[in-house]
Amino acid sequence: STPITATLFPGDGIGPEIAESVKQIFEAADVPVEWEEHYVGDQIDPRTQSFLTWESLESVRQNRVGLKGPMATPIGKGHRSLNLTLRKELNLYANVRPCHSLPGYKTRYDDVNLITIRENTEGEYSGLEHQVVRGVVESLKIITRHASLRVAEYAFHYAKSHGRERVSAIHKANIMQKTDGLFLKCCREVAEKYPEIKYEEVVIDNCCMMLVKNPALFDVLVMPNLYGDIISDLCAGLVGGLGLTPSCNIGEGGIALAEAVHGSAPDIAGKATVRELA
Amino acid sequence: STPITATLFPGDGIGPEIAESVKQIFEAADVPVEWEEHYVGDQIDPRTQSFLTWESLESVRQNRVGLKGPMATPIGKGHRSLNLTLRKELNLYANVRPCHSLPGYKTRYDDVNLITIRENTEGEYSGLEHQVVRGVVESLKIITRHASLRVAEYAFHYAKSHGRERVSAIHKANIMQKTDGLFLKCCREVAEKYPEIKYEEVVIDNCCMMLVKNPALFDVLVMPNLYGDIISDLCAGLVGGLGLTPSCNIGEGGIALAEAVHGSAPDIAGKATVRELA
Ligand SMILES: CC(C)[C@H](C(=O)O)[C@@H](O)C(=O)O
Ligand SMILES: CC(C)[C@H](C(=O)O)[C@@H](O)C(=O)O
Repeated sequence: STPITATLFPGDGIGPEIAESVKQIFEAADVPVEWEEHYVGDQIDPRTQSFLTWESLESVRQNRVGLKGPMATPIGKGHRSLNLTLRKELNLYANVRPCHSLPGYKTRYDDVNLITIRENTEGEYSGLEHQVVRGVVESLKIITRHASLRVAEYAFHYAKSHGRERVSAIHKANIMQKTDGLFLKCCREVAEKYPEIKYEEVVIDNCCMMLVKNPALFDVLVMPNLYGDIISDLCAGLVGGLGLTPSCNIGEGGIALAEAVHGSAPDIAGKATVRELA
Repeated sequence: STPITATLFPGDGIGPEIAESVKQIFEAADVPVEWEEHYVGDQIDPRTQSFLTWESLESVRQNRVGLKGPMATPIGKGHRSLNLTLRKELNLYANVRPCHSLPGYKTRYDDVNLITIRENTEGEYSGLEHQVVRGVVESLKIITRHASLRVAEYAFHYAKSHGRERVSAIHKANIMQKTDGLFLKCCREVAEKYPEIKYEEVVIDNCCMMLVKNPALFDVLVMPNLYGDIISDLCAGLVGGLGLTPSCNIGEGGIALAEAVHGSAPDIAGKATVRELA
């Protein structure tokens, strides 16, 4: 069969090693892929305001599918985080993290089988912050109808097409009535179009308590950006850690950028070793 | 010995029953307390903008110590949540929740021994929200130097006076550089005054992952309001649930208002029964 062309960001630290293994896995599985490798540049590209080059973003846009190793954002001012640049520039609006107990890997939980779907473009990640007066600073959390409907639609579509039964919208609308309230309103609108999928709303603090007590209570979870950041890592912890959970960023027009969610682990890079999981 | 006078809010649902038990416990322990009982009113008190009366707040202000059962905020507009009213009006700036594995109660964890200290007055709980244009809403998260120093000071003082070794500040300053950045800056300033207490900073997503993998890694945690809301419930889940974790709200001038953190459980109120813990 004709090979798929996919963009590959090996990334930093252990990134190139794991990228090599990934290539071998595709070969062993007899899935022909032509990899277009892109590395993070050593200068800021003014067109992306980051160390990611315009060409590498264009490569994902054209191939519509990519794989990304861990990227260590260089320290310093005047440029954007590599992860945030990818999400913004490629409009990667949904971050999907399936989280399953692995039979071969023992943790305190053996019954985790859930999917977190995180709004990936707005909320607390707006980047809008300022000092009002000395000693008083504020951050803006932005929730839009457009992005909320989009990620809710993705979550319900995912649930339906993967034979899942329930979608839980995670929120703190008892406190943030307008922002999280809008998010919930959008989820409810979409829920009505999927009568075969059960829908519920769970307050984030209660959700975290339920997750550590009995994660089997959950199926598909959809939520604003920061809650997704927190809960997806919490869930990764239930099954063993960030090295054991896949992640995919979905963009408009069907772009999919899968990623390693663990760090670049510079201390063990190139040593052909594994880190003992704590 | 002369009895202490303390304010008691029996609260709603199962509140009056547990308040009765609490009184019996103090009696059995031979600690003389004179209880000034206050109930949530059935009308909005314009002086508090809530169903809490001015007199009941005055009672706490005078006694400087109180106990509060679960309060169910009545549904409707034009008034503030009872919990938020207490925090704001009494300036209850630190919420302290010790969280310990209980020998008699089996969970997946048997090594939890940590204290969460939550900034209780600002952050994401500012109540400042508005619609910018149709379909675009924003919430303001406010962090001040005053409140951050105050809660950091409380956390380090607590750690020192309780023989604790370490304070971890929980944040997301890699994204909210200004707000969470100011919170961290204040924690660092206070940390310098307590060289005998170890100090570390942990990103909230990573913190939640570590908590579910190995809660024994943590000692005293201090954090902005919403992270405290989330993490204190997560930690309660590790040891069995909200029914098993004490909570105290500390105000300026040494006010202490201890509270039940579970709900009012109207379905089992008055039935002299207990809920099976899921
Ligand atoms: C590295 C950081 C900016 C990022 C985030 O907060 O989104 C990470 O935690 C993640 O979840 O991909
Ligand atoms: C009831 C709710 C407003 C409250 C909060 O979010 O602070 C509760 O979750 C708590 O932690 O006391």
